[in-house]
Amino acid sequence: MAAPLRLGLAGLGTVGIGVVRIVQRHAALIEARCDRPVVITAVSARDRTKNRDADLSAYAWETDPVALARRDDIDVFVEVMGGSEGPAKLATEAALAAGKDVVTANKALLAHHGQALAEAAEAKGLAIRFEAAVAGGIPVIKALTEGLAGNGMRRVMGVMNGTCNYILTRMESAGLPYDTVFEEARQLGYLEADPNLDVGGIDAGHKLSLLAAIAFGTRVSFDAVELEGIGAISIDDIRHAADLGFRIKLLGVAQMSGRGLEQRMTPCLVPMDSPLGQLQGGTNMVVLEGDAVGQIVLRGPGAGEGPTASAVMADVIDLARGLRLPTFGQRASRLAVPVAAKVATPAPYYLRMTLLDKPGALAKIATTLGDAGISIDRMRQYGHAGGNAPVLIVTHKATGADIAHAIGRFAATGVLVGDPVAIRIEEV
Amino acid sequence: MAAPLRLGLAGLGTVGIGVVRIVQRHAALIEARCDRPVVITAVSARDRTKNRDADLSAYAWETDPVALARRDDIDVFVEVMGGSEGPAKLATEAALAAGKDVVTANKALLAHHGQALAEAAEAKGLAIRFEAAVAGGIPVIKALTEGLAGNGMRRVMGVMNGTCNYILTRMESAGLPYDTVFEEARQLGYLEADPNLDVGGIDAGHKLSLLAAIAFGTRVSFDAVELEGIGAISIDDIRHAADLGFRIKLLGVAQMSGRGLEQRMTPCLVPMDSPLGQLQGGTNMVVLEGDAVGQIVLRGPGAGEGPTASAVMADVIDLARGLRLPTFGQRASRLAVPVAAKVATPAPYYLRMTLLDKPGALAKIATTLGDAGISIDRMRQYGHAGGNAPVLIVTHKATGADIAHAIGRFAATGVLVGDPVAIRIEEV
Repeated sequence: MAAPLRLGLAGLGTVGIGVVRIVQRHAALIEARCDRPVVITAVSARDRTKNRDADLSAYAWETDPVALARRDDIDVFVEVMGGSEGPAKLATEAALAAGKDVVTANKALLAHHGQALAEAAEAKGLAIRFEAAVAGGIPVIKALTEGLAGNGMRRVMGVMNGTCNYILTRMESAGLPYDTVFEEARQLGYLEADPNLDVGGIDAGHKLSLLAAIAFGTRVSFDAVELEGIGAISIDDIRHAADLGFRIKLLGVAQMSGRGLEQRMTPCLVPMDSPLGQLQGGTNMVVLEGDAVGQIVLRGPGAGEGPTASAVMADVIDLARGLRLPTFGQRASRLAVPVAAKVATPAPYYLRMTLLDKPGALAKIATTLGDAGISIDRMRQYGHAGGNAPVLIVTHKATGADIAHAIGRFAATGVLVGDPVAIRIEEV
Repeated sequence: MAAPLRLGLAGLGTVGIGVVRIVQRHAALIEARCDRPVVITAVSARDRTKNRDADLSAYAWETDPVALARRDDIDVFVEVMGGSEGPAKLATEAALAAGKDVVTANKALLAHHGQALAEAAEAKGLAIRFEAAVAGGIPVIKALTEGLAGNGMRRVMGVMNGTCNYILTRMESAGLPYDTVFEEARQLGYLEADPNLDVGGIDAGHKLSLLAAIAFGTRVSFDAVELEGIGAISIDDIRHAADLGFRIKLLGVAQMSGRGLEQRMTPCLVPMDSPLGQLQGGTNMVVLEGDAVGQIVLRGPGAGEGPTASAVMADVIDLARGLRLPTFGQRASRLAVPVAAKVATPAPYYLRMTLLDKPGALAKIATTLGDAGISIDRMRQYGHAGGNAPVLIVTHKATGADIAHAIGRFAATGVLVGDPVAIRIEEV
């Protein structure tokens, strides 16, 4: 039997303690599966005195994660601290410089510095693994990098921020406005210290950029992700979308076309009876579309101690078993610099607006759409509330630019009350 | 760059030609992902003259798959012929004896001879990979063996025969009886030459036994799978189950308890709003439950040229990348001989029966159930058709043995018309 694989664990929050628990509880199981033991040698966290409800007495303690990363008695540096800069970055760089493999749950670090880190690892023949960085317990990095490696990928989609999906689901089920549910989520501890990481789509955008790099063989380019959060989603739109057979999700979509690489993390309508439309609460879902396999859907918990630690341990066990491959599935030096698509793939759009109760109002809107080359698939006009008529339109496929152009011209019709809402309908 | 990985491809049916197409179409992509080329050197099939709509001119031809398996110019023997005995078995054994890794789509072969083949491979340091043998394009072997390797597995479930799910879905949507839809499926070419492999649950049972071996670290024991096909499912039961909020699926369940290893491939009711309940048509779904991760659901095409070839190629690419692990996730010699559970985990049951329209009939049934220790969760009595009353009962949790015992005693009540139906409700 081979020597034990020795871990240095940086970060003893929820995920770090989850890793400790699995390593301790499943020592025999992991040894059987790896044909060698996996042990924790040393740990680090800011505060040694904090009660963590786990027995850490057998592990050496480092206050500085950089010192942990450099220890001679670790083989793998496990980084579950978080943060794209500062100690997480310094310690990860130090680990690679000291010849250690890295397992990380840090999506922000890789979204911002993935290419440089992958090149540093490659130069030394080291591995960086990050299953826990995307969609929690769902083994999606493995499914995409290895399980679908025989496919040219067509599109990758995902609901990858459980907090946003919780908020949108709760708004619909309880009929509550965004601000109320946001406050509930804050009090339940579902939100990051900076809530914009969640509701602004940034966290989910980080994840999407990592999936896109693997799927399309390109350098991570988080800066090119089109980001739009859920803060502007109204209960009205959730209800009207439901009337039309749709649900609103914060949906990540990455696809490669003749126009270049598209990466979007924006609110979208999806059919209520699709797997994405049926996804309720904090659960995550990733949809992988390949030219040979068709569509694969993966669903599971996107956060929490057990699921995230499960993903960390999958990477650790791969390394213990000697399963190693390049960070993003092929040599970092071969990853292409992606050309960002300037125009998104056309899609149907959901439009909601309120019209003055005047003869010909609707005709003016329809004409404006037609003049912009946008045809109408379905339209629904509701009973007049206070003299004004709410109107819903589902268009045929159009580009976002065409939709924006048409909406810009609605004002000139003089029949609109307030601002119209336009949300992309992603065809799933 | 390393030398090419050379494949010998045995079987040029739908899946084999799918593999040829991927290797040819994605040569550059696969080379980038593996850092080496993957090539087909030689192929074999029964009939060389058959038109296969693929260019095979560059490949050496062997009529005998055993000869193919022994060729010096192949590294990996890819077996997509099928059949648990005969040429597939002989050729796979020959490949291992000749020092070749094996990639196979053959669930029957592994369900019957998995332990012996795994031991033969282990003795020579070779790999047997079989992603394509279970759930077609869904990378479930990888998800279970590697992605969830940090988990003690609690339960594995799956709808893994698309033909059965097509038949059950179509019966419900079209309101047609089993025999009619079975005949439709036959004419559409959805059924195996021996339809009992599909509708008898054998094919899906093979798959379940492979998942169970990996999940619980036990030797494959297909003979211990409780098998029941879908031939006895009536349109009445599909309708009544729907009334109660359930759908009927041919569901595989493997779980390890204090009673031992349970493996069942039987019709079950599942909640209509669960992912399993929502699965329509020929699509497959596997549910993996681990003690750290909770529940992971994987959904995708379970058959067909592209999906199955995608899975074969995932295994091939793993080997080209040097990713190797034991056949069932740990040393074959360490796999335990499972103790088959004699009694299945208790579950709620759906009961349907027709009672004579006599005072006290229902009371007699309820009393009989109570005497057998079975309590009633819900009951529904329908309008009397021709004087007799159809009754549906959902019980609280009971063992299958208790249910069978109670049903045996129904006859003595003298109030029953025909035989009652009992179907397990799997809690998902």
